[in-house]
Amino acid sequence: MSLSPSLSDVKAAARRIAPHVHCTPVLTCASLDERTGANLYFKCENLQKGGAFKFRGACNAVLSLSRAELERGVITCSSGNHGAALALAARRRGARALVVMPHDSAAVKVAAVRSYGAEIIECEPNDASRQETVDRIRGERAMTFVPPYDDERIICGQGTAALELLEQVPDLDLVLTPVGGGGLLSGTAIAVSESRPRASVIGVEPCAADDTFRSFRAGRIVRASAPPATIADGLRTGIGELTFPIIRERVERIVTVSEEAIAAAMRTALERLKLVVEPSAAVPLAAALGGGLDLRGRRTGIVLSGGNVDFDCLPWSPERLH
Amino acid sequence: MSLSPSLSDVKAAARRIAPHVHCTPVLTCASLDERTGANLYFKCENLQKGGAFKFRGACNAVLSLSRAELERGVITCSSGNHGAALALAARRRGARALVVMPHDSAAVKVAAVRSYGAEIIECEPNDASRQETVDRIRGERAMTFVPPYDDERIICGQGTAALELLEQVPDLDLVLTPVGGGGLLSGTAIAVSESRPRASVIGVEPCAADDTFRSFRAGRIVRASAPPATIADGLRTGIGELTFPIIRERVERIVTVSEEAIAAAMRTALERLKLVVEPSAAVPLAAALGGGLDLRGRRTGIVLSGGNVDFDCLPWSPERLH
Repeated sequence: MSLSPSLSDVKAAARRIAPHVHCTPVLTCASLDERTGANLYFKCENLQKGGAFKFRGACNAVLSLSRAELERGVITCSSGNHGAALALAARRRGARALVVMPHDSAAVKVAAVRSYGAEIIECEPNDASRQETVDRIRGERAMTFVPPYDDERIICGQGTAALELLEQVPDLDLVLTPVGGGGLLSGTAIAVSESRPRASVIGVEPCAADDTFRSFRAGRIVRASAPPATIADGLRTGIGELTFPIIRERVERIVTVSEEAIAAAMRTALERLKLVVEPSAAVPLAAALGGGLDLRGRRTGIVLSGGNVDFDCLPWSPERLH
Repeated sequence: MSLSPSLSDVKAAARRIAPHVHCTPVLTCASLDERTGANLYFKCENLQKGGAFKFRGACNAVLSLSRAELERGVITCSSGNHGAALALAARRRGARALVVMPHDSAAVKVAAVRSYGAEIIECEPNDASRQETVDRIRGERAMTFVPPYDDERIICGQGTAALELLEQVPDLDLVLTPVGGGGLLSGTAIAVSESRPRASVIGVEPCAADDTFRSFRAGRIVRASAPPATIADGLRTGIGELTFPIIRERVERIVTVSEEAIAAAMRTALERLKLVVEPSAAVPLAAALGGGLDLRGRRTGIVLSGGNVDFDCLPWSPERLH
């Protein structure tokens, strides 16, 4: 018997957060369909409140807290989007928020967290420093911890994006999501595997941050030995203790993409989809475009997970790609 | 008695093109609502086929042609989006297309026209050279001319975007569109003034290409004395003979925005809406953000007219705006 969350938990999360989140549109693109031979359906979580799917999980978690837990304020660690999402969700319930952010977080994300009224404390860009900093502050201030991904409320909240996608496009063959800590991928896998068992779920990871790929192959969690050097800043965290077993059980496989492919996919999204997707969100698109996955004839959902980009730091130079 | 097109013509166009065009989503943005004090509804024609509203008019025109007219091939003049739209619409009916383009057209738009299989012939960037080149080729090849804006079929096709917007958001107080040749603005004015008479329509124009503003004030068409120098490449054409009387009769007023405001609005769309809008499409957003229009408490539709941008030539330098 598994104690991990199930479809009914994702459905409960969807009902809970429905008044607070955007039902994001699903877009199609004839030229990318032609290029891949697939029917691609882009679930635009870059258009979600806070600019990322993260608001779904944060909202579900905050709405699940007691008045007493809320009054102590909420704390989390995040490279940005979860922090901003939690700050936004907390503000809507009148609670304080504190976000521990790696000092190399994207400036645009630090600004977003701050704009939602949260306090920011910096840490080193590795899982140990994140956890240590959070533990220290929780000890000092007795705040309520809302983890970025390794938490049932978060996993179920993130799974609501795929649930919504399956309502918008019922007959999908495959869903692709990025994988960092695994909240989105595990939630998606729960929603898809139970409501459309014929469809597969594939997680996509940067080659430069491939701990989930290696863990999936090894059958146990394998940690990165050094901070991953990828432009996909949302995917630098290691896979979670709670998310990994769900992924192992319900995800078909994990594939990886190069940094160059991520930057090119981000640019393709701008030029072809007319959408701003951040590097982390371009990762599954990179897999779809790269030829490593054979998508011909497959109705493929791609979760465009976020759109928080610094337009002063685009990952290409004007000369390089043209 | 007016002989200009009416709401029933726009509705007929909507029925005609429905199987061929995207019903584009309408997006909202809490931070921009906060900034303007309005409720803004963004009609995403940048997500239309071909990346601009122009496909609506071109599609309506091409579907209205006889088999004989189609077989002679279609010709137009366009700085890009109408040319691409016509090429795409013609290709879908198996017809040849030729587009006369000013030699300073955006490279990304030239590439789009070419990718849809049209022949391209260059002209000087002014209305006289455009018309002269078209007339010469029509004389030589007997092709069927589909004007970019000064044509009832085009005006009615462009008006279907506002018709759709009013179905998606019925109780608008105001609709803003850019104005170049006036096809979109006049079509919008017909749709809005007849189906929601309480709502106003305002056209927005670059200061650097303000012939419609000056014509509106003078009560007669005033031509620019030199080619307009604006980054809004879609709005460099002069107002049309057919579109101007409709605009004069049904549009509340024309306002203008600076080049700096257009570039800043384009960046705001990328950062806040997560949408790629081209400079011409950023023009009404610039008016909404600039403070020249008091939108407080007004439910305001903004037609984001296109998203064809060259990401090697963004109208800001990384150093300048941050």
